[in-house]
Amino acid sequence: MTTVAPEPRGELELIRRLAARLAPPGAPRDPVAFGDDMALLDAAGPLLWTVDMLMDGVDFDSRRHPWDAIGRKAMAVNLSDCAAMAVEPIAALCAVALAEHLSLADAETLIAAADACGRQYGCPIVGGDTNSWAAPTVISITIAGRPRPGVPPVRRDGARPGDTVWLSGPVGGSILGRHLTFEPRVALALELAARLRPHALIDISDGLALDLSRILTASGCGAVLDAAALDAVLHPDAARLAAADGRSAREHGLYDGEDFELIAVLPPDAPASDAAALGLRWLGRIVADPGVWLATGSGAPEPLPIRGWEHFR
Amino acid sequence: MTTVAPEPRGELELIRRLAARLAPPGAPRDPVAFGDDMALLDAAGPLLWTVDMLMDGVDFDSRRHPWDAIGRKAMAVNLSDCAAMAVEPIAALCAVALAEHLSLADAETLIAAADACGRQYGCPIVGGDTNSWAAPTVISITIAGRPRPGVPPVRRDGARPGDTVWLSGPVGGSILGRHLTFEPRVALALELAARLRPHALIDISDGLALDLSRILTASGCGAVLDAAALDAVLHPDAARLAAADGRSAREHGLYDGEDFELIAVLPPDAPASDAAALGLRWLGRIVADPGVWLATGSGAPEPLPIRGWEHFR
Repeated sequence: MTTVAPEPRGELELIRRLAARLAPPGAPRDPVAFGDDMALLDAAGPLLWTVDMLMDGVDFDSRRHPWDAIGRKAMAVNLSDCAAMAVEPIAALCAVALAEHLSLADAETLIAAADACGRQYGCPIVGGDTNSWAAPTVISITIAGRPRPGVPPVRRDGARPGDTVWLSGPVGGSILGRHLTFEPRVALALELAARLRPHALIDISDGLALDLSRILTASGCGAVLDAAALDAVLHPDAARLAAADGRSAREHGLYDGEDFELIAVLPPDAPASDAAALGLRWLGRIVADPGVWLATGSGAPEPLPIRGWEHFR
Repeated sequence: MTTVAPEPRGELELIRRLAARLAPPGAPRDPVAFGDDMALLDAAGPLLWTVDMLMDGVDFDSRRHPWDAIGRKAMAVNLSDCAAMAVEPIAALCAVALAEHLSLADAETLIAAADACGRQYGCPIVGGDTNSWAAPTVISITIAGRPRPGVPPVRRDGARPGDTVWLSGPVGGSILGRHLTFEPRVALALELAARLRPHALIDISDGLALDLSRILTASGCGAVLDAAALDAVLHPDAARLAAADGRSAREHGLYDGEDFELIAVLPPDAPASDAAALGLRWLGRIVADPGVWLATGSGAPEPLPIRGWEHFR
C-alpha cells in the first residue's frame, strides 16, 4: 500500500521554487536580493519599458496549449515590443493571477518557461507578483530595454512621403500555431536600426493593416502597398486558413493579428540590397495622402479598410 | 423625441481618452511619444522596479467599491513597495484586463484614478496595456523608483540581534476600509532612511506577523514583541472587527493584511526620540533565536504562530 502525499501548494512554496530557479545560489543580485519589495534595474542611461497582459481564453487557451508554450508567449510578445523600438531587452518582471485549480508544477512551468525564453535574449525575470483566484489565469510581463550606444529607439512617428515599407517575414494565419512559436525579431531590429536608420518601426500584434496605420497616423501620412508584393509575403498559413474559412489569403495577411513580424519604414536612400540582405521584404511606399492603399498595377490604388484586433468592443 | 447615441466603446477610444488625460498636449514625452511600443524611463543610475496585480473579488470588490477607489489602491500598493525600500517613485505602467461589461467611463475612471494617485507622489502612468475579457477585472501596475543620493535602498535582510523593531502606524482591521484609503508611507520612509539608517524595512501587505517574519527569515534571526506595545499600536478597527467576529483585537493586529504601514528595524544606537519624532512606535527587539515571540512581562516570551494572507493554497 502506498501513501500519496498531498501535492504541495501555496504561494510561499511557489516563490521558494521560483527563487531557486530564477536566482540560484552563487548568482547573487546584490545590492537587492531576489524576493525583496522591489527588484534592481541596473541602468546606465535611459531605459524603455513596456507591459503586456495575456489572458486565458483570449491570448491563449489552457485547455489546448501547454503551460510552457503559454509562458514562452508571454515573454516573447514583450521581447517583440523591444524589437519594435530596436532596444536590447535586459530584464523582466512577471505578475500572475493563477486559476486556483492550477497545480504548483503547472504554475512553476508557466513562469520558468517565460524566464527561459527571456534568458535566450539576455532578459531574465528578476521579480514579480504571484496571486491566485477563482477565474481564468492571467500573466502580465513587464520588460525593460536599453538602447544600443549610438542607436536611438525607433519611434512610430517618423515615416515621411517617399520612404519605403518593408516586412521582416511572412504574415497571415498565425492562429494556426505561430502566435505561440514566433521568434521575436530582436536581433534583426538591432541590426537594421544600426545599419539602415529606419524612420519608423512597429511589430505586428493586431494585424498588418492596423499596425501599419498606427505608424501612418502617428506620422501624418499614408501608404500604398503593392498587391503583388503583398501576395508574395503571405504565409502559407494564410492560404491554409483561407481554404478553411472562405475568406481570402490576402485578407488574412492584412488583418490577422499576432504575426509579430516587424514593419520597417526606411528612408528613400536606404539601399534596397542592404534591406534584402537582412531578409526584409519590400511591400510599398509612404505617400502624403492618409490611409492604406492597395495598388494592383491597373488603375488607381484603392483604399483598404482598417480593422484588426481591438479589445473592449 | 431624443435619439440616444450608443455609448462609445473600444480599446482605441479608451487609449485615445487616456492619452489625452495622461499625456496632454504641451507635455511631450520626447524622445518617445505616449502610445509607442515602449515608454521612456529616464534613469540616472540604478532603478528599482516592482509589480502588483489586483483582482476583482480578491483585492477589491467592484460591486461595493467605486472604480476610482480601486484605481487608487492599485497605485498605492505599489507606492507602498517603494516606501518599503525607501526609494522615490518616478513612473508607472498600467495593464488591465477589463470585464467586458464595464463602461468606457468606468474603465477610464479606474486608470485615471491610479494615475492621479501616482502623480501625488511624483509617479505618473507613462504607458500600459488595455485588454478586455469575459471574466472579472484585473489591474496590474508596475512601478519604478530611484534611490535618493547617498541613501541606498533598504533591504529585508539586514536585521541583527540588538536592533529594535518599530511600526509606522496602527494595525488591524484594514478590511473595514483602510485597505482602500491608506496613505503609502513614501515620505516617511525616505526621511527615516536618511536620518536613522534602518537595518531592514518592509511594508505590511500580508500581515504584521508574516511580513515581520520575512525580515527575520532573510536576516537569520528572530524578534520579541512587547505585548503592551503591540496592544498600543492596534487600530480601533481591530477592536471593532474583534467585537464582530469573536477573535481578539491582538489577533487582527498580528494577522490582518493590507495595513501598508512600515515595519522598520533600527540599529541599537538609533535614538528612540528621533524615531518617535518621526511618528514611529516601538514594538520590540531583534534576537538571535528564530521566530516571532510575544513577551507579556510575566514569564518567558511565547512563540507566535506565523500565518497571514497567502495566495494559491
